[in-house]
Amino acid sequence: MPFRHTLTVRFDEIDRAGIAYFAQVFRYCHVAYEELIAQAVGSLEDLFRSRTWATPMVHAEADYVRPMFVGDVLTIDLQVERLGEKSVTFAYEVRGEDGEPRARVRLIHAFVELEGFVARPVPEAFRAGLVRLGLVPG
Amino acid sequence: MPFRHTLTVRFDEIDRAGIAYFAQVFRYCHVAYEELIAQAVGSLEDLFRSRTWATPMVHAEADYVRPMFVGDVLTIDLQVERLGEKSVTFAYEVRGEDGEPRARVRLIHAFVELEGFVARPVPEAFRAGLVRLGLVPG
Amino acid sequence: MPFRHTLTVRFDEIDRAGIAYFAQVFRYCHVAYEELIAQAVGSLEDLFRSRTWATPMVHAEADYVRPMFVGDVLTIDLQVERLGEKSVTFAYEVRGEDGEPRARVRLIHAFVELEGFVARPVPEAFRAGLVRLGLVPG
Amino acid sequence: MPFRHTLTVRFDEIDRAGIAYFAQVFRYCHVAYEELIAQAVGSLEDLFRSRTWATPMVHAEADYVRPMFVGDVLTIDLQVERLGEKSVTFAYEVRGEDGEPRARVRLIHAFVELEGFVARPVPEAFRAGLVRLGLVPG
Repeated sequence: MPFRHTLTVRFDEIDRAGIAYFAQVFRYCHVAYEELIAQAVGSLEDLFRSRTWATPMVHAEADYVRPMFVGDVLTIDLQVERLGEKSVTFAYEVRGEDGEPRARVRLIHAFVELEGFVARPVPEAFRAGLVRLGLVPG
Repeated sequence: MPFRHTLTVRFDEIDRAGIAYFAQVFRYCHVAYEELIAQAVGSLEDLFRSRTWATPMVHAEADYVRPMFVGDVLTIDLQVERLGEKSVTFAYEVRGEDGEPRARVRLIHAFVELEGFVARPVPEAFRAGLVRLGLVPG
Repeated sequence: MPFRHTLTVRFDEIDRAGIAYFAQVFRYCHVAYEELIAQAVGSLEDLFRSRTWATPMVHAEADYVRPMFVGDVLTIDLQVERLGEKSVTFAYEVRGEDGEPRARVRLIHAFVELEGFVARPVPEAFRAGLVRLGLVPG
Repeated sequence: MPFRHTLTVRFDEIDRAGIAYFAQVFRYCHVAYEELIAQAVGSLEDLFRSRTWATPMVHAEADYVRPMFVGDVLTIDLQVERLGEKSVTFAYEVRGEDGEPRARVRLIHAFVELEGFVARPVPEAFRAGLVRLGLVPG
Protein backbone atom coordinates (compact mmCIF):
# COMPACT_ATOMS: atom_id res chain seq x y z
CA MET A 1 0.00 0.00 0.00
CA PRO A 2 1.48 3.36 -1.01
CA PHE A 3 1.40 6.47 1.18
CA ARG A 4 -1.22 8.79 -0.28
CA HIS A 5 -1.53 12.57 -0.25
CA THR A 6 -4.09 14.72 -2.07
CA LEU A 7 -3.69 18.36 -3.11
CA THR A 8 -5.13 20.97 -5.45
CA VAL A 9 -3.35 22.77 -8.31
CA ARG A 10 -3.34 26.50 -7.52
CA PHE A 11 -3.71 29.66 -9.63
CA ASP A 12 -0.08 30.78 -9.19
CA GLU A 13 1.28 27.36 -10.18
CA ILE A 14 0.02 27.79 -13.74
CA ASP A 15 2.53 29.01 -16.35
CA ARG A 16 2.18 31.11 -19.50
CA ALA A 17 1.00 28.05 -21.41
CA GLY A 18 -2.01 27.77 -19.09
CA ILE A 19 -1.00 24.50 -17.37
CA ALA A 20 0.84 23.64 -14.16
CA TYR A 21 4.53 24.61 -14.55
CA PHE A 22 6.53 21.42 -15.05
CA ALA A 23 8.67 21.89 -11.92
CA GLN A 24 5.56 22.13 -9.72
CA VAL A 25 5.12 18.37 -9.94
CA PHE A 26 8.38 17.95 -8.03
CA ARG A 27 6.98 20.20 -5.33
CA TYR A 28 3.70 18.26 -5.23
CA CYS A 29 5.64 15.02 -4.65
CA HIS A 30 7.90 16.62 -2.05
CA VAL A 31 4.81 17.85 -0.17
CA ALA A 32 3.68 14.20 0.00
CA TYR A 33 7.17 13.36 1.31
CA GLU A 34 6.83 16.09 3.97
CA GLU A 35 3.53 14.56 5.10
CA LEU A 36 5.24 11.16 5.19
CA ILE A 37 8.08 12.48 7.34
CA ALA A 38 5.62 14.20 9.70
CA GLN A 39 3.86 10.86 10.23
CA ALA A 40 6.94 8.64 10.18
CA VAL A 41 9.40 10.72 12.20
CA GLY A 42 7.64 13.82 13.58
CA SER A 43 7.33 17.60 13.17
CA LEU A 44 9.66 18.93 10.48
CA GLU A 45 10.40 22.10 12.42
CA ASP A 46 11.33 20.12 15.55
CA LEU A 47 13.47 17.79 13.44
CA PHE A 48 15.41 20.65 11.90
CA ARG A 49 15.92 22.28 15.28
CA SER A 50 17.10 19.15 17.06
CA ARG A 51 18.21 16.44 14.68
CA THR A 52 21.71 15.94 13.34
CA TRP A 53 20.83 14.46 9.94
CA ALA A 54 19.26 15.68 6.69
CA THR A 55 18.07 14.03 3.46
CA PRO A 56 19.24 16.24 0.55
CA MET A 57 18.19 15.35 -2.98
CA VAL A 58 20.79 13.65 -5.16
CA HIS A 59 18.54 12.85 -8.12
CA ALA A 60 15.08 13.89 -9.32
CA GLU A 61 13.23 12.88 -12.45
CA ALA A 62 9.73 13.17 -13.85
CA ASP A 63 7.83 11.83 -16.83
CA TYR A 64 4.87 13.97 -17.83
CA VAL A 65 1.84 12.11 -19.12
CA ARG A 66 -1.00 14.67 -19.24
CA PRO A 67 -1.17 18.40 -18.43
CA MET A 68 -2.49 19.53 -15.03
CA PHE A 69 -4.91 22.49 -14.82
CA VAL A 70 -5.83 24.98 -12.10
CA GLY A 71 -8.24 23.44 -9.61
CA ASP A 72 -7.29 19.85 -10.49
CA VAL A 73 -7.33 17.64 -7.40
CA LEU A 74 -4.29 15.39 -7.61
CA THR A 75 -3.71 12.13 -5.79
CA ILE A 76 -0.06 11.41 -5.09
CA ASP A 77 0.95 7.84 -4.26
CA LEU A 78 4.40 7.45 -2.76
CA GLN A 79 6.26 4.16 -2.54
CA VAL A 80 9.75 3.27 -1.35
CA GLU A 81 11.50 1.86 -4.38
CA ARG A 82 14.75 1.16 -2.55
CA LEU A 83 16.08 1.83 0.95
CA GLY A 84 19.86 1.57 0.71
CA GLU A 85 22.58 2.15 3.29
CA LYS A 86 23.27 5.73 2.24
CA SER A 87 20.23 6.71 0.19
CA VAL A 88 16.51 6.13 -0.31
CA THR A 89 14.56 6.13 -3.60
CA PHE A 90 10.89 7.16 -3.63
CA ALA A 91 8.60 6.53 -6.61
CA TYR A 92 5.55 8.78 -6.99
CA GLU A 93 2.49 8.36 -9.15
CA VAL A 94 0.44 11.52 -9.70
CA ARG A 95 -3.15 10.97 -10.83
CA GLY A 96 -6.11 13.23 -11.57
CA GLU A 97 -9.68 12.81 -10.36
CA ASP A 98 -10.36 10.61 -13.39
CA GLY A 99 -7.77 8.14 -12.08
CA GLU A 100 -5.56 8.69 -15.13
CA PRO A 101 -1.83 9.40 -14.57
CA ARG A 102 -0.56 12.94 -14.89
CA ALA A 103 3.12 12.32 -14.05
CA ARG A 104 5.51 9.75 -12.62
CA VAL A 105 8.32 11.02 -10.42
CA ARG A 106 11.38 9.46 -8.81
CA LEU A 107 13.28 11.26 -6.03
CA ILE A 108 16.53 9.93 -4.53
CA HIS A 109 17.67 11.39 -1.20
CA ALA A 110 21.06 10.85 0.45
CA PHE A 111 21.49 10.61 4.23
CA VAL A 112 23.94 13.21 5.52
CA GLU A 113 24.97 14.79 8.78
CA LEU A 114 23.35 18.24 9.02
CA GLU A 115 26.83 19.62 9.82
CA GLY A 116 28.87 19.64 6.63
CA PHE A 117 26.50 17.45 4.59
CA VAL A 118 28.79 14.38 5.09
CA ALA A 119 27.32 10.98 4.07
CA ARG A 120 26.02 8.82 6.93
CA PRO A 121 23.99 5.58 7.25
CA VAL A 122 20.17 5.62 7.23
CA PRO A 123 18.96 7.19 10.50
CA GLU A 124 17.22 4.57 12.65
CA ALA A 125 14.19 6.81 13.34
CA PHE A 126 13.75 7.21 9.57
CA ARG A 127 13.89 3.48 8.86
CA ALA A 128 11.62 2.67 11.81
CA GLY A 129 9.04 5.22 10.64
CA LEU A 130 8.95 3.76 7.13
CA VAL A 131 8.54 0.26 8.60
CA ARG A 132 5.72 1.42 10.88
CA LEU A 133 3.86 2.94 7.90
CA GLY A 134 4.28 -0.33 6.00
CA LEU A 135 6.48 1.20 3.30
CA VAL A 136 9.48 -1.08 3.92
CA PRO A 137 9.59 -4.60 5.43
CA GLY A 138 10.35 -4.77 9.17
CA MET B 1 -19.40 34.02 9.46
CA PRO B 2 -16.17 34.19 7.47
CA PHE B 3 -15.23 31.73 4.72
CA ARG B 4 -12.56 29.45 6.16
CA HIS B 5 -9.71 27.57 4.52
CA THR B 6 -6.94 25.58 6.20
CA LEU B 7 -3.49 24.82 4.80
CA THR B 8 -0.01 23.73 5.83
CA VAL B 9 3.25 25.70 5.49
CA ARG B 10 5.57 23.71 3.22
CA PHE B 11 9.34 23.08 3.16
CA ASP B 12 9.98 25.14 0.01
CA GLU B 13 8.04 28.14 1.35
CA ILE B 14 10.65 28.73 4.05
CA ASP B 15 13.33 31.37 3.36
CA ARG B 16 16.97 31.73 4.40
CA ALA B 17 15.85 33.08 7.80
CA GLY B 18 14.07 29.79 8.52
CA ILE B 19 10.49 31.13 8.44
CA ALA B 20 7.78 31.35 5.78
CA TYR B 21 8.84 33.92 3.16
CA PHE B 22 6.76 37.06 3.68
CA ALA B 23 5.14 36.97 0.24
CA GLN B 24 3.84 33.42 0.85
CA VAL B 25 1.11 34.83 3.10
CA PHE B 26 -0.39 36.56 0.05
CA ARG B 27 -0.44 33.22 -1.73
CA TYR B 28 -2.05 31.53 1.29
CA CYS B 29 -4.86 34.09 1.26
CA HIS B 30 -5.29 33.86 -2.51
CA VAL B 31 -5.63 30.08 -2.19
CA ALA B 32 -8.52 30.72 0.21
CA TYR B 33 -9.96 33.08 -2.43
CA GLU B 34 -9.61 30.36 -5.09
CA GLU B 35 -11.56 27.96 -2.87
CA LEU B 36 -14.18 30.68 -2.38
CA ILE B 37 -14.52 31.24 -6.13
CA ALA B 38 -14.80 27.49 -6.76
CA GLN B 39 -17.69 27.31 -4.30
CA ALA B 40 -19.30 30.66 -5.19
CA VAL B 41 -18.98 30.64 -8.98
CA GLY B 42 -17.56 27.30 -10.16
CA SER B 43 -14.42 25.63 -11.54
CA LEU B 44 -11.61 28.14 -12.12
CA GLU B 45 -10.45 26.38 -15.28
CA ASP B 46 -13.97 26.43 -16.75
CA LEU B 47 -14.33 30.07 -15.76
CA PHE B 48 -11.12 31.07 -17.50
CA ARG B 49 -12.07 29.12 -20.61
CA SER B 50 -15.58 30.51 -20.90
CA ARG B 51 -16.07 33.68 -18.91
CA THR B 52 -15.52 37.18 -20.15
CA TRP B 53 -14.45 38.83 -16.88
CA ALA B 54 -11.45 38.67 -14.55
CA THR B 55 -10.63 40.04 -11.08
CA PRO B 56 -7.06 41.39 -11.20
CA MET B 57 -5.47 42.69 -8.02
CA VAL B 58 -5.29 46.46 -7.60
CA HIS B 59 -4.04 46.53 -4.02
CA ALA B 60 -2.52 44.04 -1.58
CA GLU B 61 -1.29 44.57 1.96
CA ALA B 62 -0.22 42.47 4.90
CA ASP B 63 0.66 43.05 8.54
CA TYR B 64 2.88 40.36 9.99
CA VAL B 65 2.25 39.48 13.64
CA ARG B 66 4.23 36.29 14.30
CA PRO B 67 6.54 34.14 12.12
CA MET B 68 5.17 31.00 10.44
CA PHE B 69 7.23 27.80 10.45
CA VAL B 70 7.35 24.69 8.25
CA GLY B 71 4.50 22.31 9.10
CA ASP B 72 2.37 25.02 10.73
CA VAL B 73 -1.31 24.44 10.03
CA LEU B 74 -2.84 27.83 9.26
CA THR B 75 -6.49 28.79 9.40
CA ILE B 76 -7.43 31.54 6.96
CA ASP B 77 -10.67 33.43 7.55
CA LEU B 78 -11.87 35.49 4.61
CA GLN B 79 -14.49 38.23 4.88
CA VAL B 80 -15.88 40.68 2.35
CA GLU B 81 -14.95 44.10 3.68
CA ARG B 82 -16.60 45.97 0.84
CA LEU B 83 -18.33 45.01 -2.41
CA GLY B 84 -18.32 48.10 -4.60
CA GLU B 85 -19.50 48.67 -8.15
CA LYS B 86 -16.07 48.17 -9.73
CA SER B 87 -14.05 46.43 -7.02
CA VAL B 88 -14.24 44.10 -4.04
CA THR B 89 -12.16 44.21 -0.84
CA PHE B 90 -11.41 40.99 1.05
CA ALA B 91 -10.00 40.95 4.59
CA TYR B 92 -8.10 37.85 5.70
CA GLU B 93 -7.06 36.76 9.17
CA VAL B 94 -4.34 34.10 9.29
CA ARG B 95 -4.09 32.15 12.56
CA GLY B 96 -1.94 29.29 13.83
CA GLU B 97 -3.10 26.16 15.62
CA ASP B 98 -2.83 28.07 18.90
CA GLY B 99 -5.52 30.46 17.65
CA GLU B 100 -3.08 33.39 17.73
CA PRO B 101 -2.85 35.65 14.65
CA ARG B 102 0.09 35.25 12.28
CA ALA B 103 -0.87 37.91 9.73
CA ARG B 104 -3.71 40.13 8.58
CA VAL B 105 -4.12 40.65 4.84
CA ARG B 106 -6.29 42.87 2.65
CA LEU B 107 -6.71 42.20 -1.07
CA ILE B 108 -8.61 44.50 -3.42
CA HIS B 109 -9.65 43.14 -6.82
CA ALA B 110 -11.06 45.14 -9.72
CA PHE B 111 -13.67 43.75 -12.09
CA VAL B 112 -12.49 43.85 -15.70
CA GLU B 113 -13.37 42.37 -19.05
CA LEU B 114 -10.93 39.54 -19.81
CA GLU B 115 -10.32 41.17 -23.20
CA GLY B 116 -8.23 44.29 -22.66
CA PHE B 117 -8.60 44.43 -18.86
CA VAL B 118 -11.22 47.23 -19.18
CA ALA B 119 -13.17 48.08 -15.97
CA ARG B 120 -16.69 46.65 -15.76
CA PRO B 121 -19.40 46.34 -13.06
CA VAL B 122 -19.43 43.44 -10.58
CA PRO B 123 -20.39 40.25 -12.47
CA GLU B 124 -23.81 39.01 -11.34
CA ALA B 125 -22.60 35.40 -10.86
CA PHE B 126 -19.87 36.73 -8.57
CA ARG B 127 -22.25 38.79 -6.44
CA ALA B 128 -24.82 35.98 -6.31
CA GLY B 129 -22.16 33.49 -5.18
CA LEU B 130 -21.01 35.76 -2.34
CA VAL B 131 -24.64 36.23 -1.26
CA ARG B 132 -25.28 32.48 -1.33
CA LEU B 133 -22.24 31.87 0.90
CA GLY B 134 -23.49 34.51 3.32
CA LEU B 135 -20.52 36.83 2.75
CA VAL B 136 -22.60 39.79 1.56
CA PRO B 137 -26.26 40.65 2.29
CA GLY B 138 -28.78 39.44 -0.32
CA MET C 1 19.19 58.76 -6.26
CA PRO C 2 17.36 55.46 -5.73
CA PHE C 3 19.06 52.06 -5.72
CA ARG C 4 18.19 50.38 -9.00
CA HIS C 5 17.83 46.72 -9.93
CA THR C 6 16.62 45.25 -13.23
CA LEU C 7 15.06 41.83 -13.77
CA THR C 8 12.96 39.87 -16.23
CA VAL C 9 9.49 38.38 -15.67
CA ARG C 10 9.75 34.60 -16.10
CA PHE C 11 7.48 31.92 -17.57
CA ASP C 12 6.65 30.28 -14.23
CA GLU C 13 5.73 33.61 -12.62
CA ILE C 14 2.68 33.97 -14.87
CA ASP C 15 -0.69 32.90 -13.45
CA ARG C 16 -3.83 31.41 -15.01
CA ALA C 17 -4.88 34.90 -16.15
CA GLY C 18 -1.73 35.16 -18.29
CA ILE C 19 -0.01 37.93 -16.30
CA ALA C 20 2.58 38.00 -13.51
CA TYR C 21 0.96 36.64 -10.31
CA PHE C 22 0.30 39.59 -8.01
CA ALA C 23 2.53 38.33 -5.18
CA GLN C 24 5.53 38.10 -7.55
CA VAL C 25 5.92 41.88 -7.37
CA PHE C 26 6.80 41.55 -3.69
CA ARG C 27 9.49 39.05 -4.62
CA TYR C 28 10.81 41.36 -7.37
CA CYS C 29 11.20 44.17 -4.82
CA HIS C 30 12.76 41.87 -2.23
CA VAL C 31 15.31 40.75 -4.83
CA ALA C 32 16.27 44.43 -5.23
CA TYR C 33 16.57 44.57 -1.42
CA GLU C 34 18.83 41.50 -1.46
CA GLU C 35 21.09 43.21 -4.00
CA LEU C 36 21.09 46.31 -1.79
CA ILE C 37 22.08 44.28 1.29
CA ALA C 38 24.85 42.50 -0.67
CA GLN C 39 26.30 45.91 -1.61
CA ALA C 40 25.59 47.70 1.66
CA VAL C 41 26.50 45.00 4.19
CA GLY C 42 27.94 41.96 2.38
CA SER C 43 27.17 38.37 1.33
CA LEU C 44 23.74 37.24 2.56
CA GLU C 45 24.95 33.70 3.24
CA ASP C 46 27.88 34.99 5.33
CA LEU C 47 25.55 37.37 7.16
CA PHE C 48 23.13 34.60 8.06
CA ARG C 49 25.96 32.35 9.22
CA SER C 50 27.68 34.96 11.38
CA ARG C 51 25.44 37.87 12.20
CA THR C 52 23.18 38.13 15.21
CA TRP C 53 20.42 40.27 13.70
CA ALA C 54 17.68 39.85 11.11
CA THR C 55 15.20 42.16 9.35
CA PRO C 56 11.82 40.37 9.27
CA MET C 57 8.91 41.97 7.45
CA VAL C 58 6.28 43.68 9.58
CA HIS C 59 4.27 45.26 6.76
CA ALA C 60 4.05 44.88 2.98
CA GLU C 61 1.78 46.64 0.51
CA ALA C 62 1.48 47.03 -3.23
CA ASP C 63 -0.59 49.09 -5.63
CA TYR C 64 -0.89 47.56 -9.06
CA VAL C 65 -0.96 49.98 -11.97
CA ARG C 66 -0.54 47.85 -15.11
CA PRO C 67 -0.18 44.09 -15.70
CA MET C 68 3.29 42.57 -16.20
CA PHE C 69 3.85 39.97 -18.91
CA VAL C 70 6.37 37.18 -19.47
CA GLY C 71 9.67 38.56 -20.78
CA ASP C 72 8.98 42.09 -19.50
CA VAL C 73 12.20 43.73 -18.30
CA LEU C 74 11.36 45.57 -15.09
CA THR C 75 13.31 48.38 -13.47
CA ILE C 76 12.95 48.49 -9.70
CA ASP C 77 13.89 51.71 -7.91
CA LEU C 78 14.32 51.40 -4.16
CA GLN C 79 14.36 54.34 -1.78
CA VAL C 80 14.55 54.58 2.00
CA GLU C 81 11.33 56.24 3.05
CA ARG C 82 12.15 56.19 6.75
CA LEU C 83 14.97 54.77 8.87
CA GLY C 84 13.65 54.60 12.42
CA GLU C 85 15.16 53.25 15.61
CA LYS C 86 13.51 49.83 15.36
CA SER C 87 12.38 49.62 11.74
CA VAL C 88 13.10 50.73 8.20
CA THR C 89 10.60 51.55 5.43
CA PHE C 90 11.54 51.01 1.78
CA ALA C 91 9.52 52.42 -1.12
CA TYR C 92 9.79 50.68 -4.49
CA GLU C 93 8.73 51.85 -7.91
CA VAL C 94 8.45 49.12 -10.55
CA ARG C 95 8.54 50.30 -14.17
CA GLY C 96 8.45 48.61 -17.55
CA GLU C 97 10.73 49.26 -20.52
CA ASP C 98 8.34 52.00 -21.62
CA GLY C 99 9.11 53.86 -18.39
CA GLU C 100 5.50 53.56 -17.24
CA PRO C 101 4.81 52.31 -13.69
CA ARG C 102 3.65 48.73 -13.19
CA ALA C 103 3.41 48.75 -9.38
CA ARG C 104 4.36 50.70 -6.27
CA VAL C 105 5.43 48.73 -3.22
CA ARG C 106 6.22 49.57 0.40
CA LEU C 107 8.05 47.11 2.66
CA ILE C 108 8.65 47.74 6.37
CA HIS C 109 11.25 45.60 8.13
CA ALA C 110 11.85 45.41 11.88
CA PHE C 111 15.31 44.95 13.39
CA VAL C 112 15.47 41.87 15.61
CA GLU C 113 18.04 39.64 17.23
CA LEU C 114 18.33 36.43 15.18
CA GLU C 115 17.86 34.49 18.44
CA GLY C 116 14.22 34.79 19.49
CA PHE C 117 13.27 37.57 17.04
CA VAL C 118 13.43 40.17 19.87
CA ALA C 119 13.35 43.85 18.78
CA ARG C 120 16.70 45.66 18.71
CA PRO C 121 18.04 49.01 17.45
CA VAL C 122 19.18 49.47 13.84
CA PRO C 123 22.45 47.54 13.34
CA GLU C 124 25.34 49.93 12.75
CA ALA C 125 26.61 48.01 9.69
CA PHE C 126 23.15 48.33 8.15
CA ARG C 127 22.91 52.09 8.73
CA ALA C 128 26.48 52.66 7.55
CA GLY C 129 25.83 50.69 4.36
CA LEU C 130 22.73 52.74 3.53
CA VAL C 131 24.70 55.96 4.16
CA ARG C 132 27.56 54.77 1.94
CA LEU C 133 25.11 54.04 -0.91
CA GLY C 134 23.60 57.51 -0.49
CA LEU C 135 20.18 56.21 0.55
CA VAL C 136 20.15 57.96 3.96
CA PRO C 137 21.98 61.11 5.07
CA GLY C 138 25.31 60.51 6.84
CA MET D 1 29.72 26.34 -27.81
CA PRO D 2 26.83 26.12 -25.33
CA PHE D 3 24.26 28.87 -24.78
CA ARG D 4 25.10 30.52 -21.46
CA HIS D 5 22.91 32.27 -18.90
CA THR D 6 23.91 33.59 -15.47
CA LEU D 7 21.63 34.13 -12.48
CA THR D 8 21.69 34.57 -8.71
CA VAL D 9 20.14 32.31 -6.07
CA ARG D 10 17.53 34.34 -4.18
CA PHE D 11 16.40 34.48 -0.53
CA ASP D 12 12.98 32.93 -1.16
CA GLU D 13 14.47 30.02 -3.14
CA ILE D 14 16.14 28.64 -0.01
CA ASP D 15 14.35 25.84 1.86
CA ARG D 16 14.18 24.87 5.53
CA ALA D 17 17.55 23.09 5.20
CA GLY D 18 19.20 26.41 4.29
CA ILE D 19 20.03 25.57 0.66
CA ALA D 20 18.32 26.16 -2.69
CA TYR D 21 15.18 23.96 -2.86
CA PHE D 22 15.92 21.07 -5.21
CA ALA D 23 13.16 21.95 -7.71
CA GLN D 24 14.58 25.47 -8.15
CA VAL D 25 17.36 24.07 -10.34
CA PHE D 26 14.72 23.08 -12.91
CA ARG D 27 13.49 26.65 -12.89
CA TYR D 28 17.04 28.00 -13.26
CA CYS D 29 17.53 25.85 -16.37
CA HIS D 30 14.13 26.77 -17.79
CA VAL D 31 15.01 30.46 -17.37
CA ALA D 32 18.09 29.79 -19.55
CA TYR D 33 15.74 28.12 -22.03
CA GLU D 34 13.45 31.19 -22.01
CA GLU D 35 16.45 33.40 -22.81
CA LEU D 36 17.37 30.99 -25.61
CA ILE D 37 13.86 31.13 -27.07
CA ALA D 38 13.82 34.93 -26.86
CA GLN D 39 17.05 35.05 -28.89
CA ALA D 40 16.26 32.14 -31.22
CA VAL D 41 12.59 32.77 -31.99
CA GLY D 42 11.47 36.04 -30.39
CA SER D 43 9.42 37.52 -27.53
CA LEU D 44 7.70 34.81 -25.48
CA GLU D 45 4.60 36.91 -24.96
CA ASP D 46 4.27 37.56 -28.70
CA LEU D 47 4.84 33.89 -29.40
CA PHE D 48 2.11 32.80 -27.02
CA ARG D 49 -0.30 35.36 -28.45
CA SER D 50 0.32 34.51 -32.10
CA ARG D 51 1.95 31.15 -32.53
CA THR D 52 0.16 27.85 -32.97
CA TRP D 53 2.71 25.55 -31.35
CA ALA D 54 4.03 24.91 -27.82
CA THR D 55 6.89 22.89 -26.31
CA PRO D 56 5.50 21.13 -23.19
CA MET D 57 7.85 19.11 -21.02
CA VAL D 58 7.72 15.34 -21.40
CA HIS D 59 10.71 14.49 -19.21
CA ALA D 60 12.88 16.32 -16.66
CA GLU D 61 15.77 15.02 -14.60
CA ALA D 62 18.50 16.45 -12.40
CA ASP D 63 21.59 15.14 -10.66
CA TYR D 64 22.64 17.24 -7.69
CA VAL D 65 26.37 17.56 -7.11
CA ARG D 66 26.81 20.32 -4.50
CA PRO D 67 24.33 22.49 -2.57
CA MET D 68 23.56 26.03 -3.79
CA PHE D 69 23.34 28.89 -1.29
CA VAL D 70 21.63 32.29 -1.25
CA GLY D 71 23.59 34.82 -3.29
CA ASP D 72 25.43 32.17 -5.31
CA VAL D 73 25.96 33.33 -8.88
CA LEU D 74 25.27 30.34 -11.13
CA THR D 75 26.38 29.83 -14.71
CA ILE D 76 24.03 27.68 -16.76
CA ASP D 77 25.33 26.14 -19.96
CA LEU D 78 22.65 24.78 -22.29
CA GLN D 79 23.35 22.39 -25.14
CA VAL D 80 21.08 20.61 -27.60
CA GLU D 81 21.61 16.92 -26.93
CA ARG D 82 19.18 15.79 -29.61
CA LEU D 83 16.78 17.51 -31.99
CA GLY D 84 14.30 14.84 -33.12
CA GLU D 85 11.25 15.05 -35.33
CA LYS D 86 8.78 15.40 -32.47
CA SER D 87 10.94 16.38 -29.49
CA VAL D 88 14.11 18.16 -28.43
CA THR D 89 16.48 17.25 -25.58
CA PHE D 90 18.46 19.97 -23.79
CA ALA D 91 21.38 19.22 -21.46
CA TYR D 92 22.23 21.83 -18.82
CA GLU D 93 25.34 22.15 -16.68
CA VAL D 94 24.96 24.40 -13.62
CA ARG D 95 28.21 25.71 -12.14
CA GLY D 96 29.12 28.01 -9.26
CA GLU D 97 31.57 30.90 -9.32
CA ASP D 98 34.34 28.43 -8.47
CA GLY D 99 33.67 26.65 -11.78
CA GLU D 100 32.64 23.47 -9.96
CA PRO D 101 29.37 21.77 -10.97
CA ARG D 102 26.29 22.19 -8.79
CA ALA D 103 23.84 20.16 -10.86
CA ARG D 104 23.31 18.54 -14.26
CA VAL D 105 19.86 18.73 -15.79
CA ARG D 106 18.16 17.21 -18.83
CA LEU D 107 14.87 18.56 -20.16
CA ILE D 108 12.93 16.94 -23.01
CA HIS D 109 10.21 18.99 -24.70
CA ALA D 110 7.65 17.72 -27.19
CA PHE D 111 6.38 19.82 -30.10
CA VAL D 112 2.60 20.18 -30.01
CA GLU D 113 -0.10 22.31 -31.54
CA LEU D 114 -1.21 24.91 -28.96
CA GLU D 115 -4.81 23.80 -29.64
CA GLY D 116 -5.34 20.41 -28.03
CA PHE D 117 -1.65 19.66 -27.35
CA VAL D 118 -1.49 17.31 -30.39
CA ALA D 119 2.01 16.19 -31.48
CA ARG D 120 3.48 17.99 -34.48
CA PRO D 121 6.89 18.18 -36.24
CA VAL D 122 9.60 20.60 -35.08
CA PRO D 123 8.50 24.16 -35.96
CA GLU D 124 10.76 25.59 -38.65
CA ALA D 125 11.31 28.90 -36.75
CA PHE D 126 12.47 26.86 -33.74
CA ARG D 127 14.96 24.79 -35.77
CA ALA D 128 16.22 27.82 -37.68
CA GLY D 129 16.80 29.71 -34.41
CA LEU D 130 18.84 26.89 -32.92
CA VAL D 131 20.91 26.69 -36.12
CA ARG D 132 21.50 30.44 -36.09
CA LEU D 133 22.75 30.28 -32.48
CA GLY D 134 25.10 27.43 -33.44
CA LEU D 135 23.36 24.90 -31.20
CA VAL D 136 22.49 22.47 -34.02
CA PRO D 137 24.19 21.97 -37.41
CA GLY D 138 22.66 23.90 -40.33
